[in-house]
Amino acid sequence: MKIIIVGASGTMGKYLTEAFQEEHEIITVNTNSGAIPTDITDVAAIEKMYREAGAFDALICTAGPTFVGPWSRLTDQEFRKGIEGKLMGQVNLVLIGQHYINPKGSFTLITGALTKEPQRHFANASAANGAVEAFVRAAAIELENGIRINAVSPTVIENSPQYFPFFPGEIPTTMKALEAGFRKSLFGAGTGQVIVP
Amino acid sequence: MKIIIVGASGTMGKYLTEAFQEEHEIITVNTNSGAIPTDITDVAAIEKMYREAGAFDALICTAGPTFVGPWSRLTDQEFRKGIEGKLMGQVNLVLIGQHYINPKGSFTLITGALTKEPQRHFANASAANGAVEAFVRAAAIELENGIRINAVSPTVIENSPQYFPFFPGEIPTTMKALEAGFRKSLFGAGTGQVIVP
Repeated sequence: MKIIIVGASGTMGKYLTEAFQEEHEIITVNTNSGAIPTDITDVAAIEKMYREAGAFDALICTAGPTFVGPWSRLTDQEFRKGIEGKLMGQVNLVLIGQHYINPKGSFTLITGALTKEPQRHFANASAANGAVEAFVRAAAIELENGIRINAVSPTVIENSPQYFPFFPGEIPTTMKALEAGFRKSLFGAGTGQVIVP
Repeated sequence: MKIIIVGASGTMGKYLTEAFQEEHEIITVNTNSGAIPTDITDVAAIEKMYREAGAFDALICTAGPTFVGPWSRLTDQEFRKGIEGKLMGQVNLVLIGQHYINPKGSFTLITGALTKEPQRHFANASAANGAVEAFVRAAAIELENGIRINAVSPTVIENSPQYFPFFPGEIPTTMKALEAGFRKSLFGAGTGQVIVP
């Protein structure tokens, strides 16, 4: 299977690249590195990335920039970070990518527990997650040629201990469970699902 | 109670204005009419509206422009209609309005069943709704001075029969039920709730 991993240099992306690269052809995409560097907040850059990558079977996105910080600093301007990044970045990967992906291919986007279980400092991520999860359900009934779409929605992940203090009492998602969530999306038959690993 | 109704000239806003105006002071806000005309996609216009309105007890928003149309026409550009309108418009009404609202006041935003139950042609509304519902849950744990926030999430409403063909088999939300949903938010004690009327 030919798999594009967007955000391949991040904590999740690096782990998934290693997990999948023995059995599959992986194309790594990061903002300033990877096989095809791409800025997902730029529609033209996404188009260019897909043209370079050629037809593929699955896209995984683990890139989702949002504003993290005190509510008192959250203004329209800060909110745009998650709107342009985690929300429109991922939406555009699908809206554009549907014209390049193989029939029966799949898109797997990243959201998170903050959709349902908010934490202080993360309102922007909550909103972006909620949008992407609803978009995934809507896109699943629109995409043609058997193309599937799901979201994987972990809580704070095991390999990002710097975020633990923001998630009191939360049992982190292990990297193994995260990988299993992505496997379910890529190799299962489900579509329009929010997979909680 | 002094209540600002944004989208007061729309189908829902008109009904709610009539329902509440005998017992409460209503300030109507529409894009090009109402007591204080305001474009909710313009941060400066929102600020100006609040300054003119003065301190208030509740804000109801029923204004939520989104792109409605074939998936094949849904591009980044069309998607922005819901992002700037129903999503950022409502988010900014809260981020700015929290500095003008009275202690123990409330914000009640509009979402809809499309968050969970997508329909063809409405992916943009699904995404905006999902974002607003997650934002409501996140804002509820951040807002201070006893300020509450909820969303009301109807399905297609009784007084908008032009949308019935897009919602096959859906039993419309009656205007009475819709009003009850807003009453629950304004006069109840709940916060961070998505109220299904």
